[in-house]
Amino acid sequence: MNETINSILEEIHQEVLPFLGTGKVVDYIPILNEADPNKFGMTLISNDRRIYSVGNAQELFSIQSVSKVLTLTLAMQLGEEKLWKRVGREPSGNRFNSLVQLEHENGKPRNPFINAGALVVTDMLISALDDPKAEILDFVRKVSCNSTLEYNFEIAQAEKEMGFTNAALVNFMKSFKNIENDVEEVLDTYFHHCSIMLNTEDLARSFMMLSNQGNMNFCNEQIISKRQSKRINSIMATSGFYDQAGEFAYRVGLPGKSGVSGAIAAVYPGDFSVAVWSPELNSNGNSVLGIEALDRLTTKLELSIY
Amino acid sequence: MNETINSILEEIHQEVLPFLGTGKVVDYIPILNEADPNKFGMTLISNDRRIYSVGNAQELFSIQSVSKVLTLTLAMQLGEEKLWKRVGREPSGNRFNSLVQLEHENGKPRNPFINAGALVVTDMLISALDDPKAEILDFVRKVSCNSTLEYNFEIAQAEKEMGFTNAALVNFMKSFKNIENDVEEVLDTYFHHCSIMLNTEDLARSFMMLSNQGNMNFCNEQIISKRQSKRINSIMATSGFYDQAGEFAYRVGLPGKSGVSGAIAAVYPGDFSVAVWSPELNSNGNSVLGIEALDRLTTKLELSIY
Amino acid sequence: MNETINSILEEIHQEVLPFLGTGKVVDYIPILNEADPNKFGMTLISNDRRIYSVGNAQELFSIQSVSKVLTLTLAMQLGEEKLWKRVGREPSGNRFNSLVQLEHENGKPRNPFINAGALVVTDMLISALDDPKAEILDFVRKVSCNSTLEYNFEIAQAEKEMGFTNAALVNFMKSFKNIENDVEEVLDTYFHHCSIMLNTEDLARSFMMLSNQGNMNFCNEQIISKRQSKRINSIMATSGFYDQAGEFAYRVGLPGKSGVSGAIAAVYPGDFSVAVWSPELNSNGNSVLGIEALDRLTTKLELSIY
Amino acid sequence: MNETINSILEEIHQEVLPFLGTGKVVDYIPILNEADPNKFGMTLISNDRRIYSVGNAQELFSIQSVSKVLTLTLAMQLGEEKLWKRVGREPSGNRFNSLVQLEHENGKPRNPFINAGALVVTDMLISALDDPKAEILDFVRKVSCNSTLEYNFEIAQAEKEMGFTNAALVNFMKSFKNIENDVEEVLDTYFHHCSIMLNTEDLARSFMMLSNQGNMNFCNEQIISKRQSKRINSIMATSGFYDQAGEFAYRVGLPGKSGVSGAIAAVYPGDFSVAVWSPELNSNGNSVLGIEALDRLTTKLELSIY
Repeated sequence: MNETINSILEEIHQEVLPFLGTGKVVDYIPILNEADPNKFGMTLISNDRRIYSVGNAQELFSIQSVSKVLTLTLAMQLGEEKLWKRVGREPSGNRFNSLVQLEHENGKPRNPFINAGALVVTDMLISALDDPKAEILDFVRKVSCNSTLEYNFEIAQAEKEMGFTNAALVNFMKSFKNIENDVEEVLDTYFHHCSIMLNTEDLARSFMMLSNQGNMNFCNEQIISKRQSKRINSIMATSGFYDQAGEFAYRVGLPGKSGVSGAIAAVYPGDFSVAVWSPELNSNGNSVLGIEALDRLTTKLELSIY
Repeated sequence: MNETINSILEEIHQEVLPFLGTGKVVDYIPILNEADPNKFGMTLISNDRRIYSVGNAQELFSIQSVSKVLTLTLAMQLGEEKLWKRVGREPSGNRFNSLVQLEHENGKPRNPFINAGALVVTDMLISALDDPKAEILDFVRKVSCNSTLEYNFEIAQAEKEMGFTNAALVNFMKSFKNIENDVEEVLDTYFHHCSIMLNTEDLARSFMMLSNQGNMNFCNEQIISKRQSKRINSIMATSGFYDQAGEFAYRVGLPGKSGVSGAIAAVYPGDFSVAVWSPELNSNGNSVLGIEALDRLTTKLELSIY
Repeated sequence: MNETINSILEEIHQEVLPFLGTGKVVDYIPILNEADPNKFGMTLISNDRRIYSVGNAQELFSIQSVSKVLTLTLAMQLGEEKLWKRVGREPSGNRFNSLVQLEHENGKPRNPFINAGALVVTDMLISALDDPKAEILDFVRKVSCNSTLEYNFEIAQAEKEMGFTNAALVNFMKSFKNIENDVEEVLDTYFHHCSIMLNTEDLARSFMMLSNQGNMNFCNEQIISKRQSKRINSIMATSGFYDQAGEFAYRVGLPGKSGVSGAIAAVYPGDFSVAVWSPELNSNGNSVLGIEALDRLTTKLELSIY
Repeated sequence: MNETINSILEEIHQEVLPFLGTGKVVDYIPILNEADPNKFGMTLISNDRRIYSVGNAQELFSIQSVSKVLTLTLAMQLGEEKLWKRVGREPSGNRFNSLVQLEHENGKPRNPFINAGALVVTDMLISALDDPKAEILDFVRKVSCNSTLEYNFEIAQAEKEMGFTNAALVNFMKSFKNIENDVEEVLDTYFHHCSIMLNTEDLARSFMMLSNQGNMNFCNEQIISKRQSKRINSIMATSGFYDQAGEFAYRVGLPGKSGVSGAIAAVYPGDFSVAVWSPELNSNGNSVLGIEALDRLTTKLELSIY
């Protein structure tokens, strides 16, 4: 098995490299646009805790929207009842930062993986935690079993300075009374957790809690219940890829979540977690090589949750 | 196992009966509204072809929108390339019969399980088949291994007489040139395949092609490829329940499809197919007892695709 | 005055000719696309019944959407109370044939000058009149003081064969129970009244009922009350030009109504009615030379209702 | 004439008082909600500078959205070309603070009288003026011929503290690069000019520039050109009353603008300006007694621009 997976990852690496140059590195803030477009890293961790990596798997990138899965997990630990009154769990059918749906649905975001939903989750964490930014970072360190992870304050600051759409979302939801805390604090906390720097090994380790039978992380701590894991995976499956959720389900067949840094994390429940990173994005904001790699992975392994 | 499943179905039957009276039988046409609201039938068929039934599993009802899965399957057999140019495979985020999305997306329906998408699929079948209504019925007889299935002409006629929203959809898509055939013929064929009468055993048998490893039907004929089966299941998972797709994924955790007659069919790939029928619907147009029963089934069996 | 107006119209004629070739003749049906793009006709009728014409003022064209003003007038004669329950009188902010607004507002069109609204008005006329098509034509003959006006059956038939958007609108409104009569009859009657052939003199005579102090037509018959005339003019002012109503108010400053044949009729209440015709349309579906001509008219005469 | 108008205003006063209690004082911020619901004031100023008042015409209220007409006028003085690239002049068909349209139209507001449009106008004034708040107040003092007018800082502050929807609008437009200045400064300036305190006499004097032939204010200073006056009036006519612009045109027949304090200003070009104030609002956010009074005024005087 070890050999097989290693050689499959090698094959994939070779097969996806020709796609370099077909996407575009995110450009709404300069610091993110500086990412080297030629990078590709991938890590698969089987539930027996074997780590298989290929390419730039040690290179750090900001977690961006993949952090929405981790903040949701933390919020679910703190209590689900109130959460689902303030955020839905239906696919949105719209761009990740749409205000239209909020206007038609009284300020309640469709799901926790569009920006509006993640901002409400962040607002709930601020209300529930004593030191939100410190505790969110601690949680990500815990699920990733890597106590050296840090915020990238430069990225967080740059996002904040250009974050007019997210500021519009928070203000708009506050007008519907679906934000409890100060607008600036919500945005600051949100941009911070999006700025956490990690590599594909960290990310694959973090997602083990969603693939592992006992919902233990890599270092054997239980993070959530089996039921919660299945719920988070179901939301990733219907809403993890913005406008391309159906396409990802159709082509790859795994629950997963993408971010604009070019990161994608996914799980095959009961078997493995996998993380890919490559900065060039397609028109839906998902990593070109990331999706090609995961499509090839499930095709070669002949598996899918469906 | 046999015993276990039988007793679980019995338990479920008892547990869901108290929900009778909490939904509403569909009322947009009188003949559908005549359905006895007190009915509940459920059939599970394991991949070893054992049939487990409870309640009114022999009672006939019209298949309604569950037929969308079968017409999609037939259309995929005839060639997928053109199909996905004319219909998307993303969740819609809107009501099952929304015209808004069509207007914003040039007449291309989001997926084949909203009405607009199923009408385009029907249009493609009309273009491809010599005798569309006869061949569609033959196909449903084949996948269900029941050659006695028939159209209910009275229901088809009644739907047609009141089918103004669907007529609006077909005309609107034709204005975008996404309907090739005569508007009346598309509607007539569509309402006919929605009117096919069957029971939960027929429905569970029909869905075996999506749960069975070899994608054989109950009577051992291969219907589609494994890859096609996974694709159909992925679309059911993201778009099978109108506005409640995320909720069904979250609570039940299986790919499935519902219809306004109160039918739901679902699959646990590699293990079993299951069909439920109970006419009372919730506000999203899905069977109240059907969803309760399937929620209990996956909870009791401790399984989910996620 | 006579001299002045004649020379102003001549000036306008010369000034607008250079705009020929900058628009596009309507092309959704071939017979309308056959119109000679080089035509321009204009007629102004002062309330003392003097007729001032320039260019191709004797050439016939189909009235198209300008007929919506005349069918509204007829419907208002038959009783306003029910009318305004079924059609609004607010600007739509959307394309002339939008289904979005209908979906959000339960099938009640925003105003009688978008297609949906005119179709409801047509439906009301069918319910109220013994021989709708004959009586509508009679009414147009009466207001225009021209008993030779006729339907163009070829145009009506061609519109019907390609009228999928309008068929979608009627079916959709019928699903909201805002259409009483048979869908085909509503469409047939609507396309007929859009096909009436006339010239700019006929059109300017028809609109005298809205400019004339006593609301008499050219041949001295009172058609409507002063109050009704003001109301119709107010709706033309806010909703007579689809997406360009504000622009027309801003540039021209008169209540008016346009049609896809390139016709525009407008009034300066208390003084004159005016009709222009030139087949090339701008991207909002309004006659390029028509708008240029009317803009120049009010600039040269230094008048505007505002 | 003097006598007639006085007695007509007295009649109107008596006729509208029974409508007290049928609307609701605005309640989104407490300080505005404190307004005495029983107030009604009205002032008409003929172009010969005679002032006719009735009721609480000396009572101060905040100008609110009626200020949008004055800031637009100031911006038009500074140059129209850039203005109309950043703001449209079409009716919106939507609520006064809708974000939907902005999303579909790349952050360009439909017209200067919805909040988004007025915020862009405010942004332009900030860019063009040395001391925006002081100069805006000076301009309002000038057009009203009342140098004692002042901002109400308490109202401006309260609006700012609850102004999440407007903050959402500014941030959203800034994400489309249609706001040049700092978000906070735009909001601060906007809320200040909405807070200017005046009475119906001040307001009627201010609108003289739009009714007077020479576009002079009450104290004989020319403010704008005739052409600009007609343009502003045309935009008021199509877009001055949010969702009720068509209704106001239909019932009252004058260009005008309303504010949530219960103020309405309107003009009959060439003859008079008129201002009404009464705090109770209908469901569209327009003064109940204000609209009743203006409807009666134009009915009794038998005039309308249409």
